[in-house]
Amino acid sequence: MTTAAKRQLKLGAILEGVGADHTSWRDPALAGDASIDIGWYIDNARLAEAAKFDLVFIVDSPFITPDTAPHFLNRLEPLTLLSALAVSTSKIGLVGTLTTSYWEPYNVARQFGSLDHISKGRAGWNVVTTGLEGASRNYGRNAHFDHAVRYERAGEFVDVVQGLWDSYEDDAFPRDKAAGVFLDKDKQHALNHKGPHFQVAGPLALSRSNQGQPVIFQAGVSGAGRDLGARIAEGVFAGVDGFEDAQEYYADLKARAAAQGRDPDHISVLPGLSPVIADTDEEARALAEAQRGSVSIDKLLTQLGRAFGYHDFKQYPLDGPFPDVSGLSLNAYKGHAERIVRISREQNLTLRQAAERFGTWRSDFVGSPQTIANEIQRWFEGRAADGFILRVTRPRDFALFREEVVPLLQARGLFRTEYEHDTLRGHLGLPVPENRWTRSPGQLAAE
Amino acid sequence: MTTAAKRQLKLGAILEGVGADHTSWRDPALAGDASIDIGWYIDNARLAEAAKFDLVFIVDSPFITPDTAPHFLNRLEPLTLLSALAVSTSKIGLVGTLTTSYWEPYNVARQFGSLDHISKGRAGWNVVTTGLEGASRNYGRNAHFDHAVRYERAGEFVDVVQGLWDSYEDDAFPRDKAAGVFLDKDKQHALNHKGPHFQVAGPLALSRSNQGQPVIFQAGVSGAGRDLGARIAEGVFAGVDGFEDAQEYYADLKARAAAQGRDPDHISVLPGLSPVIADTDEEARALAEAQRGSVSIDKLLTQLGRAFGYHDFKQYPLDGPFPDVSGLSLNAYKGHAERIVRISREQNLTLRQAAERFGTWRSDFVGSPQTIANEIQRWFEGRAADGFILRVTRPRDFALFREEVVPLLQARGLFRTEYEHDTLRGHLGLPVPENRWTRSPGQLAAE
Ligand SMILES: Cc1cc2nc3c(=O)[nH]c(=O)nc-3n(C[C@H](O)[C@H](O)[C@H](O)COP(=O)(O)O)c2cc1C
Ligand SMILES: Cc1cc2nc3c(=O)[nH]c(=O)nc-3n(C[C@H](O)[C@H](O)[C@H](O)COP(=O)(O)O)c2cc1C
Repeated sequence: MTTAAKRQLKLGAILEGVGADHTSWRDPALAGDASIDIGWYIDNARLAEAAKFDLVFIVDSPFITPDTAPHFLNRLEPLTLLSALAVSTSKIGLVGTLTTSYWEPYNVARQFGSLDHISKGRAGWNVVTTGLEGASRNYGRNAHFDHAVRYERAGEFVDVVQGLWDSYEDDAFPRDKAAGVFLDKDKQHALNHKGPHFQVAGPLALSRSNQGQPVIFQAGVSGAGRDLGARIAEGVFAGVDGFEDAQEYYADLKARAAAQGRDPDHISVLPGLSPVIADTDEEARALAEAQRGSVSIDKLLTQLGRAFGYHDFKQYPLDGPFPDVSGLSLNAYKGHAERIVRISREQNLTLRQAAERFGTWRSDFVGSPQTIANEIQRWFEGRAADGFILRVTRPRDFALFREEVVPLLQARGLFRTEYEHDTLRGHLGLPVPENRWTRSPGQLAAE
Repeated sequence: MTTAAKRQLKLGAILEGVGADHTSWRDPALAGDASIDIGWYIDNARLAEAAKFDLVFIVDSPFITPDTAPHFLNRLEPLTLLSALAVSTSKIGLVGTLTTSYWEPYNVARQFGSLDHISKGRAGWNVVTTGLEGASRNYGRNAHFDHAVRYERAGEFVDVVQGLWDSYEDDAFPRDKAAGVFLDKDKQHALNHKGPHFQVAGPLALSRSNQGQPVIFQAGVSGAGRDLGARIAEGVFAGVDGFEDAQEYYADLKARAAAQGRDPDHISVLPGLSPVIADTDEEARALAEAQRGSVSIDKLLTQLGRAFGYHDFKQYPLDGPFPDVSGLSLNAYKGHAERIVRISREQNLTLRQAAERFGTWRSDFVGSPQTIANEIQRWFEGRAADGFILRVTRPRDFALFREEVVPLLQARGLFRTEYEHDTLRGHLGLPVPENRWTRSPGQLAAE
């Protein structure tokens, strides 16, 4: 049962320092060490909070090469970063990406649970399985887990973490100094999870926060990725390719969630947003063109290959048809790679065209603040998105977005003008999950 | 080569919320939720900084039972906690405990490296192997690693982490916007570690901080524990049993370090300190007596059993001789358990006496501020300690220590009156380690 509140646009800010592309870092207004400077993150988190954003979002990767984009080469780690932001802000949600392929659930439960206390109920965890195969070699494995196994592990991993978060009932700590009773031992619960991938006894040494549990985000576009999202996610970072693709993904994901008995309003679909904004549409288009032109075809080919586990596309003729990669395993960014192959075929793209199309962030959001606001509204009302996660790197773009685009969205009644809640669940319209040990029998039966 | 600076007392503060004993939490001045309230930690870290302490110290354990002491039952996790403190303080060192038995080196290197950047060179890692056997069941194992294996793993683990911290030479990032060169690829180094316990390729996505690398602490009293400390530690949290034992440990550890070719001044020996302070010695002794009396014999027996992997001592006659435990494996807190057995034998203790002696923190530091300062000076000058790590729980004890004991130590020229450095290495008189990729051939040969 949800209260029928008016549907509200959600906005997140990916704090990405010098940028996950190969051009942003050259912006004269951006400090070269932004990605390792906590001051940069604090300033931008506060700017996002002043603009009433729902959340900041930290993407992550446990693997780099010398060719990795600047931000990822040298940057702060998400949990330590977000804890520093937690005490530097007071309202905005704090979502960190962490892979289920190379961590221990007990440690993850502790760290996100602790962030949830430090931030007083503003933590979120973006669950990923990691696309980049080389990550395995940083964790004592010669090969990455198979795509299917990764998603199996991810589902079980999240079950364990959420189970650990419920280790204490809300009134487990009487802390009665006169009687000498700190803990009511009956209200501490061991999980005793024994599954195919994880065995974790518990209990966790942490009670629940004021939002109950951290919010679960997820990112993955393959069928397996969507199924996991439909089951566990309360927000998805959606990797979509234009308006129609986003509509398809949106409808599909919400349908999968409903099929699992969930309220589709309890998953926000949030595509990434990399707008290019200028005073006029024409200027913005010229700017976008110049930015695209500044990336060499080599870098575009590397980035294209990334989706295929850093497959080397430089070996093929640039102006020939998109090469036959049917021999590749597609174990890396499977959903994304499949889409590249499909669209390149359908549209008869050459390798160069495919690299230009998929080797960099595609953005339909190029124009004046008015145009950007219109496009956001179209996606929101057209059920292609419940909101967006904005990539924050270039100071001018972020300023224009906050100062010109957001007020337009507010004037149209699409976006909040003041925070109405103190927790991330509050911002996203999500209920506080009941502790599994105190759920009423009726609720249990309904699951 | 060290500059011959005057030997200075070092002081740390263990921030332990409601306390790792069973009585502190009942102190009327202490909030019952101190251990999960970031505000409590921030306040106390700032108080320690105002008193010019070298560092705050967070102990940790990845396992609890319903009988665990209050602070450990429900508390913030060290890395997230310390990051929040990093942006709430500016000078004091930030040391967190993390076990090498149940983490991945790549993740640990990232998180402490990130904390080191966030704090601008104030991070330290207290390396432990975890004594509590039950921890294994939170990490998919039926049994804890053997004591010897734990220490082997710990040594290799630290080697890997320190190797990863050197992934970038100091001038690896030209960030030349005009020329379009962000990274000098020749100055990014993969570790390619392949050892018996860990295989980690690297590189880590993080450059070095202004103190080069986080400071390594360690805690362990067995022979294997001392050998590890002598090789890797720059500070030890010393579990000692009175003045003579501390002198023995101090001399032994420094000798082991020297035998490995290290400068013994580059390991600070820091016993834990739980003083009971009052206006007069007599009042302090009465207070200590009352605190001891408030702990039931059951709790003391549980605590005694903890050193033996939660062995159940309630099965033996209380006033009989200390039982024969030679059948136990001593795999948990081996060094501590061996000492309990030895001393109980030598001194013909009954089980009750052993529980009273070892089931709670032993403190030789009971008295007026003058007496406490004298005792600290005696240990420092008698080479039983290079300083102490004070357990901070009861507000009154901490206030008396800061306001009355510290000024005495300052007046005697033992302790700083102002910070002279901005990094933890600076406070502790430690050199910035050279990056292994830029060390001169002479330095390599000298190792
Ligand atoms: C939009 C999007 C964002 C992602 N972000 C991350 C990330 O930050 N870190 C990471 O390790 N993997 C990330 N992934 C990778 C996924 O977790 C997953 O391993 C990979 O995409 C394969 O799953 P899929 O085929 O379902 O997309 C992301 C995937 C997508 C689609
Ligand atoms: C003074 C001291 C403090 C310790 N602190 C911790 C701790 O905070 N967390 C932990 O998991 N283990 C801790 N340990 C356990 C050690 O890492 C180790 O596993 C155990 O003591 C066995 O080693 P030993 O026989 O060398 O003492 C500590 C040990 C000592 C002696």
